[in-house]
Amino acid sequence: MIFSSPIFSAAELIGTVAFAVSGAMVAIQKRMDLFGVLFLGVITACGGGMLRDLMIGRIPPNALVHPLNLGVAALVGLIVFVLARMMKERYLNSTETVNHIFNIFDAVGLGVFTVTGAQAAIDAGYAGNGLLVLSMGVITAIGGGLIRDIIIVEVPFVLTKHIYAVASILGGLAFYGLYLLGLVPVYTVLAGTVLTFIVRVLATIFKWDLPRAIE
Amino acid sequence: MIFSSPIFSAAELIGTVAFAVSGAMVAIQKRMDLFGVLFLGVITACGGGMLRDLMIGRIPPNALVHPLNLGVAALVGLIVFVLARMMKERYLNSTETVNHIFNIFDAVGLGVFTVTGAQAAIDAGYAGNGLLVLSMGVITAIGGGLIRDIIIVEVPFVLTKHIYAVASILGGLAFYGLYLLGLVPVYTVLAGTVLTFIVRVLATIFKWDLPRAIE
Amino acid sequence: MIFSSPIFSAAELIGTVAFAVSGAMVAIQKRMDLFGVLFLGVITACGGGMLRDLMIGRIPPNALVHPLNLGVAALVGLIVFVLARMMKERYLNSTETVNHIFNIFDAVGLGVFTVTGAQAAIDAGYAGNGLLVLSMGVITAIGGGLIRDIIIVEVPFVLTKHIYAVASILGGLAFYGLYLLGLVPVYTVLAGTVLTFIVRVLATIFKWDLPRAIE
Repeated sequence: MIFSSPIFSAAELIGTVAFAVSGAMVAIQKRMDLFGVLFLGVITACGGGMLRDLMIGRIPPNALVHPLNLGVAALVGLIVFVLARMMKERYLNSTETVNHIFNIFDAVGLGVFTVTGAQAAIDAGYAGNGLLVLSMGVITAIGGGLIRDIIIVEVPFVLTKHIYAVASILGGLAFYGLYLLGLVPVYTVLAGTVLTFIVRVLATIFKWDLPRAIE
Repeated sequence: MIFSSPIFSAAELIGTVAFAVSGAMVAIQKRMDLFGVLFLGVITACGGGMLRDLMIGRIPPNALVHPLNLGVAALVGLIVFVLARMMKERYLNSTETVNHIFNIFDAVGLGVFTVTGAQAAIDAGYAGNGLLVLSMGVITAIGGGLIRDIIIVEVPFVLTKHIYAVASILGGLAFYGLYLLGLVPVYTVLAGTVLTFIVRVLATIFKWDLPRAIE
Repeated sequence: MIFSSPIFSAAELIGTVAFAVSGAMVAIQKRMDLFGVLFLGVITACGGGMLRDLMIGRIPPNALVHPLNLGVAALVGLIVFVLARMMKERYLNSTETVNHIFNIFDAVGLGVFTVTGAQAAIDAGYAGNGLLVLSMGVITAIGGGLIRDIIIVEVPFVLTKHIYAVASILGGLAFYGLYLLGLVPVYTVLAGTVLTFIVRVLATIFKWDLPRAIE
C-alpha cells in the first residue's frame, strides 16, 4: 500500500484521469502527434507526483512502480485523441466548450492532488512538518501542469492565471488543519478537494487575479 | 563497477560521445559561447542518465561520481567548438551535411542510452518491473535531449519529430525481451541499440510521423 | 545542524535574500502577479539548493525541512513587490538603476551559493570527490537562476551572459583549493565568495564574454 487509506489511492486515480485529459487537450491544441498527446497526458498526470516522490525519498517514484496510474493516463490520452480526431472541425470550432471542459478537469485534478500530495508527506512520516506537508500538496497539484507548460514552451499557466496555486494552498491548509484536528480521511479529503476546486473554478469564472506591482 | 558488465560501460561512453556532439552542435547553431557549448554538450550527454539515477536511487548520480563520462563530454564539446570555429562559413553553408551528422550521432546516442538506461534499472534490482526498466531506458535516451531543448527554449525535438521516442520504446522492448529470454549482454545490447538506431534513422529519412488528431 | 559550521548557514541565508531579490525583480518585470513574484523569488533563492540536495541524497531538501530560508525568501519577495508597487513609473523609468541592483544582488547570491553548495557536498561526505564538490557549488549557484529563466521561457541568462558560470567555477576552485590546504571556513568562504563576486561584476561591467564558434 502506498497510502495509509484507500481513499487517497482512489483520489490519486481520479486526479490522474483529470490531469491526463488536460494534458492531452493541450497537446492536441499544439498539434502534437499521437505520442506527444500520450506523453503530455502522462507527464501532466504523473509529473507532479514524481517530483513529490523524489523530494520525500519515495524512490523509484510510485508512478513507475505501480503501472496502474501511468497506464490509465495513457489510455485517457488515447481516448481524448480519438474523440478529437472524430470531431475535427467541431473540436476546433468549440473553443469555449473546450476551454470549459479543460478548466473543469484541471480543477478536479488540482483539488485531489493537493490532498494526495499532502497525505503522501504525512504517510512518509513528515506529519509534524507543516511546510513540507503543504508544499508537497502544492508541488503534486501544480507540478504536472508546470512540466507540461515548460515542455510546450509557455509561461506556466499555474503561475500566472487566476490564483491557481493559491487555490491549492488554501485547500491544503483546510486538509492539514482538519487532519491535525483528528478528522477521518473522508472528511479531510472532501474538504481539501472541494475547497481547492471551488476557489479555482470561481477564480476562473470571475477572473480573480492577485494584484500586480506594475500593471 | 556501475554496470554488471563492461559492455554497458563501453556503450554508455559511446552514447556520451554521440550526445555531446549533438548538444554542442545545437549550442553552436544557437550562437552560444564556449561555456554554453561545453555545458549543452555535457548536459545532453549526461542529463538523461542523471535523471535516471535520481529515479532509481543511485545518488549522487553516476556522472558526478565518475568523472570519465563528464570529462569526455566536455572534451568532445571542445573539439566540436574548435572544428566549427575553423570551418566558419563552410559550417554555416553546409546545413544539410550538418543535419546529417547531427542525426547520425543523435541516433547512436538514442540507441545505446536506451539499453544502458534499461540495464541500469536491472542492475539496481528492478529486473522484474518491466515498466520501470523500459521507462528508465526511454528517460535515459530522451532525457538529455529534453533538457537541451528546454534550455534553448524550443518545443522538444524528442517529443515532436519522427517517432523519436517510439524508436527508443521499441529498442527497449527488444532489449528487455531478449534479456528475459536469457541472452547474454552482447546480443541484447546489439539488438536494442541497432533496432532503436534503424527505426530512428528510417523515420528521419522517410519522415515517418505518427497521426495527429487535427492536422 | 545542516552545515558543519554556522558560517555556512549564515552565508546560505545571505544568498537566499540576494537571489530572492533577483527572482522577484524578474517576476515584476514580466508583470507577474503577487503569487508569481513570491514564487519566482522563492524558487530562485531555494531552487539551486533543492537540486543539489536531491543529488547528494539530502532528502527532503533542506529548504522544505527548515522553513527559515523559504520564509525569508517569500518575505523578501513581498518587500520587493511592495517597493516596486510604490515606485510604479519611477521603477519602470529607472532601467539602468534596476539593472545595477539586480546585478549586485545576483552576484552576491552567486558567490555565497558557490561556497555553500561546495560545502554541502563536503558535509555530505564527498570531500574527496573534487568533481562533485565543484559541480554542487555550480549547481547551487546557477540552479535557481536556471529554473527561474526556464519558467519565464527565456534562454537562461546563466548560460549565455558574461561568463556567469565560469565565475562560479573559479570561486569554487579557490574555495576547494584552500579547503584542501586546511584553511578554516572564514577564509575559504571569503575567498570563494569574493572571487566569484568580483569576476561576475567585472565581467558585467566590461562585458567579458567567452569566444563563440561562429559570431
